[in-house]
Amino acid sequence: MSVDERIHDRKFVRSFFTTPTAVEGEEDTGKMLRQAAGLRGMEAPDVWVPDNEDATAPNMRDEGARNIVDVLTEHGAGFPGEVHPRVVWHRDSPGTRYQGFRHMLEMTDPESGAPEHLDGFVIPEVGDIDDWKKADEFFTIVENENGLEEGSLKMSVIIESGAAELAMGKLREEIGKPTNNLQRMFLLVDGEVDYTKDLRAITPTGELPAWAELRHNTSRGASAAGLIAVDGPYDDIRDIEGYHERMTDNQARGMLGIWSLTPGQVVEANTSPLPPATGYWTIDADGREVELTSEDGVEVYDGDRVELEELGEDRYELEVGSDEREVTGEELRSELLDLVSYVPSMDDIVDSMEEFEAAKEAGKGAIAMTQAATVRVDGVEVEVSRDRMWDEATYQALQTPITLFQDVYENRPDQHDDLADLYGAEVVERATEIGQ
Amino acid sequence: MSVDERIHDRKFVRSFFTTPTAVEGEEDTGKMLRQAAGLRGMEAPDVWVPDNEDATAPNMRDEGARNIVDVLTEHGAGFPGEVHPRVVWHRDSPGTRYQGFRHMLEMTDPESGAPEHLDGFVIPEVGDIDDWKKADEFFTIVENENGLEEGSLKMSVIIESGAAELAMGKLREEIGKPTNNLQRMFLLVDGEVDYTKDLRAITPTGELPAWAELRHNTSRGASAAGLIAVDGPYDDIRDIEGYHERMTDNQARGMLGIWSLTPGQVVEANTSPLPPATGYWTIDADGREVELTSEDGVEVYDGDRVELEELGEDRYELEVGSDEREVTGEELRSELLDLVSYVPSMDDIVDSMEEFEAAKEAGKGAIAMTQAATVRVDGVEVEVSRDRMWDEATYQALQTPITLFQDVYENRPDQHDDLADLYGAEVVERATEIGQ
Amino acid sequence: MSVDERIHDRKFVRSFFTTPTAVEGEEDTGKMLRQAAGLRGMEAPDVWVPDNEDATAPNMRDEGARNIVDVLTEHGAGFPGEVHPRVVWHRDSPGTRYQGFRHMLEMTDPESGAPEHLDGFVIPEVGDIDDWKKADEFFTIVENENGLEEGSLKMSVIIESGAAELAMGKLREEIGKPTNNLQRMFLLVDGEVDYTKDLRAITPTGELPAWAELRHNTSRGASAAGLIAVDGPYDDIRDIEGYHERMTDNQARGMLGIWSLTPGQVVEANTSPLPPATGYWTIDADGREVELTSEDGVEVYDGDRVELEELGEDRYELEVGSDEREVTGEELRSELLDLVSYVPSMDDIVDSMEEFEAAKEAGKGAIAMTQAATVRVDGVEVEVSRDRMWDEATYQALQTPITLFQDVYENRPDQHDDLADLYGAEVVERATEIGQ
Repeated sequence: MSVDERIHDRKFVRSFFTTPTAVEGEEDTGKMLRQAAGLRGMEAPDVWVPDNEDATAPNMRDEGARNIVDVLTEHGAGFPGEVHPRVVWHRDSPGTRYQGFRHMLEMTDPESGAPEHLDGFVIPEVGDIDDWKKADEFFTIVENENGLEEGSLKMSVIIESGAAELAMGKLREEIGKPTNNLQRMFLLVDGEVDYTKDLRAITPTGELPAWAELRHNTSRGASAAGLIAVDGPYDDIRDIEGYHERMTDNQARGMLGIWSLTPGQVVEANTSPLPPATGYWTIDADGREVELTSEDGVEVYDGDRVELEELGEDRYELEVGSDEREVTGEELRSELLDLVSYVPSMDDIVDSMEEFEAAKEAGKGAIAMTQAATVRVDGVEVEVSRDRMWDEATYQALQTPITLFQDVYENRPDQHDDLADLYGAEVVERATEIGQ
Repeated sequence: MSVDERIHDRKFVRSFFTTPTAVEGEEDTGKMLRQAAGLRGMEAPDVWVPDNEDATAPNMRDEGARNIVDVLTEHGAGFPGEVHPRVVWHRDSPGTRYQGFRHMLEMTDPESGAPEHLDGFVIPEVGDIDDWKKADEFFTIVENENGLEEGSLKMSVIIESGAAELAMGKLREEIGKPTNNLQRMFLLVDGEVDYTKDLRAITPTGELPAWAELRHNTSRGASAAGLIAVDGPYDDIRDIEGYHERMTDNQARGMLGIWSLTPGQVVEANTSPLPPATGYWTIDADGREVELTSEDGVEVYDGDRVELEELGEDRYELEVGSDEREVTGEELRSELLDLVSYVPSMDDIVDSMEEFEAAKEAGKGAIAMTQAATVRVDGVEVEVSRDRMWDEATYQALQTPITLFQDVYENRPDQHDDLADLYGAEVVERATEIGQ
Repeated sequence: MSVDERIHDRKFVRSFFTTPTAVEGEEDTGKMLRQAAGLRGMEAPDVWVPDNEDATAPNMRDEGARNIVDVLTEHGAGFPGEVHPRVVWHRDSPGTRYQGFRHMLEMTDPESGAPEHLDGFVIPEVGDIDDWKKADEFFTIVENENGLEEGSLKMSVIIESGAAELAMGKLREEIGKPTNNLQRMFLLVDGEVDYTKDLRAITPTGELPAWAELRHNTSRGASAAGLIAVDGPYDDIRDIEGYHERMTDNQARGMLGIWSLTPGQVVEANTSPLPPATGYWTIDADGREVELTSEDGVEVYDGDRVELEELGEDRYELEVGSDEREVTGEELRSELLDLVSYVPSMDDIVDSMEEFEAAKEAGKGAIAMTQAATVRVDGVEVEVSRDRMWDEATYQALQTPITLFQDVYENRPDQHDDLADLYGAEVVERATEIGQ
């Protein structure tokens, strides 16, 4: 098996949800853990992370580890996602590393019922690849001491230092070496707050930098080593639109998962990488992407950033922002075609894939897929149409959202109802079968 | 010789043109190859790639290999560019790799006249550096079996996986090791469709992501290993403007070549990195770069995104987009100077280089080059002028388009007439001599 | 000590100021050096670089080396920054490397008083990591010959080739190996003019590309190896605004230092990464960040890119660019909140840090920091308010400008007066004590 094939059960992780493990002041310090363990369906994350590091006060972490054991023993069987507690670790602190090791030992002790619901651990603050190997060695010792199969505990890391970013480029050649068990690697998760500190970046408002290159390198590192890339937390939990924009940007980089701080963010994270239930057209309105309204089969723009007027026979005035042009009907169709795009629905994607598969069976290597619409701006209607050639490579590149859907469908039966509600049972059935 | 000096004949490649090798249904399945072999002048690419991989149906590839042999034997002598067939290869499929190897053996068999017109092969779907070495070893065996000099066949690869992207960072230290012949490396070509699949990226419309970091890393990898960087295919062949914007963006990254799917795209790709025949001024009109019209020595902006009015003595109102300011004449000159830029012609560049060379001979290390113009907006004329210091480093950095021109002139005599038509014989002559 | 902790005296370098070492035609060819040696306070750079490479004509460089010795002997004791002459070096030219070596030997000869004022050397045009080791070896020989402690001379390099960019990714694993003294490494300085040449990039106007990825990789390399990242020269010395924008962009990447070509640029570079003396609000006015004017506690926008009108009870019309919306008061507050940001002053940052430290002492791991303002647009006033959660990680990430300030305060007593003038003595005192 090639190192760049994902070897664990989950090939995709959409949501990575952290919960404090012990909160002082409550009678039951593990109350938040208990609540999170009860999440189901779209509110339940693909990966749940009882967070015994930053989200939990340092003096509460021993109790946090015990809470994890209790809650998993009691509620672990019913939880629909994977469970990966975050333990403490720091590349520059042997004391912290030893504390994390002891917590890992404790949580996997076969005396409790926790280990069978535990999928792995998340290691924060890793440094260079030799530091990753130290963590891996602790996993191996923990597995050995507690009678678990060597390599069975998955290891995920938080990338929050320049050294760790560079380590991702070396991972492929280190996995599989005889003296480690790095095949256990699962998620590469960016941690932008600490990364900002480590790179000593400054912004005027204190806002986090976008760190586009880090996210690229994480996604690339995941691809080269058969792992899954996950973006860090989005702090402003009221800002749903901002969270969506970040996810869209991530997805275009191949980073399909993101951290979630609340069950509300989990819902968004679980839904965002899936195709929409209904396709729609958008227009680039002077630099802003605006969704057109579908009215009786006509796609209508009713904003002010694009204006259109019919001047006379085959003469039109098109104004985009403050840019005014007189054009013929032919030119108008061409201009509008450059401005509008179609966002296909799940149904559309499945249709196109079926069409291509049929063509391939009939011996064709490439076919043209047509997208056409009537667009209306200021009452003027224009027909636009675009062909796109599909060959095997296009088919495979566009298959990703379907493969993700199938991974979700297989691993998250608790979301079947939600998916059927969203797409309809027939689309869901076709989507689970296509391209297998 | 240093590894980062380009050791092959061509130091630059502008265009990389692929042609299907065998199309079912035609009496002559190699008809497209025959047509492409007849291209000359600006329509003929720097590198022609008979594509025995994705562009050709899997069941036609054995016939495709034979077609390549036939067409090269017959027409190879007259083809003005280099010829690098793409064979099949996949990092995860030994069967595919062996098929590619057999096709390479066949095409270089001295029984036909093909080998003398064959410059190398293009290997798609490579993985990490050890995978590149496997391909290199097949080249070596092929050379040995068919009596070619070891290392004489050039190897180009398509970067379409995260592993291959990382491999580019290791190439410099691998080239020259005793157990490989990686000095044969020639082009690093991005393949964004399969790369998108490999990184599992999703965009709402199915459009390809821009992959800016990949292109940077490819250009950097080429620089560090003495190779040439080429961007992948631009699918929308009707969209000339989009193709140009992509090339301009690539060129600012040091990626001067691009894939071409049609002879029309080849013309664009061959022309784009060369300086224009006539210089011109542009203005940043509220975020859009607009070319000014030259009228009797005055550079005129006649759009609506910048507006200018004389209010009274030394008072002007300048409006950029929806941004309105009252300014003095002095401020106006300074504001406009920030907005306008000059795009020098081939003639201008040669002039400046000659001027700097003369200054250097006279013992000066740096001189100021002045760009000045009269700009007219809404009838108001403003004089703008800018000095730029040129020293040895500036000279060398700005020399790239001239060095590229000289490489084209030396290697593509079939384009001499086109270049003379474009620039005039005198400019061409000076451009071929400067800085040598 | 971990390799990624900065081991030299200066943990931050804001300004890197180059001076020609010998100018022909003057009676005293070292006049510019003598002038630069007299700089004090904000006009004096953190690192002064007598430039015996590109800024000095090739035939003047032997004399330049002697001038450096003379000027340092005479004026070195009073210079408030560190002194790092740039010597000649080239990865492809052994002759150039030997010349640089001889100049280093000469400048550190204990016969003069120069060595005690010399902190290190800057090596331009380095190639891959083995080339860096050659330079390091020359430092070691120079130290040995001239009785300096091994490793005491700091080495900085100019990153101006693809090979050097890749070398930064290997530095961490090379530092500390027994056969080098690379612990002497200090600054990683981008050199975009020669880098543009090395990557063979072309822009239509001859302007330098932005090289965002290079700057990211330099900042990351510095972080991973405990070094300091510095950006290259900004040629257009009249364009203060452009210089500032570049620095702001750099700072968001963790690159806090920049090259300066004039004492005026030094002042800007020394000031830019420090927090402002007075906080202020900005608004995203249709894609442009505009500072609001504070009038009697109300933050006023008086441009034309955002317009606001009260239509009736709880109804408003908000127009951003050409985008018009009717909103309720609640929606208006939410929309405006998305548009405005607060840039905290030094005083604000120290306040927040003190508040967080007090909360931590009281046993709280996280507290909410509130930013609130009354914003006025077209006479309509709107209250906006935003909470941000601070935990330990936030605190540490936002601490960078303060740590930088403390580094400046400790190492640059000549700037104490300027800092007191800027911030007031009380703020300066609190800022020097917080978080230590």
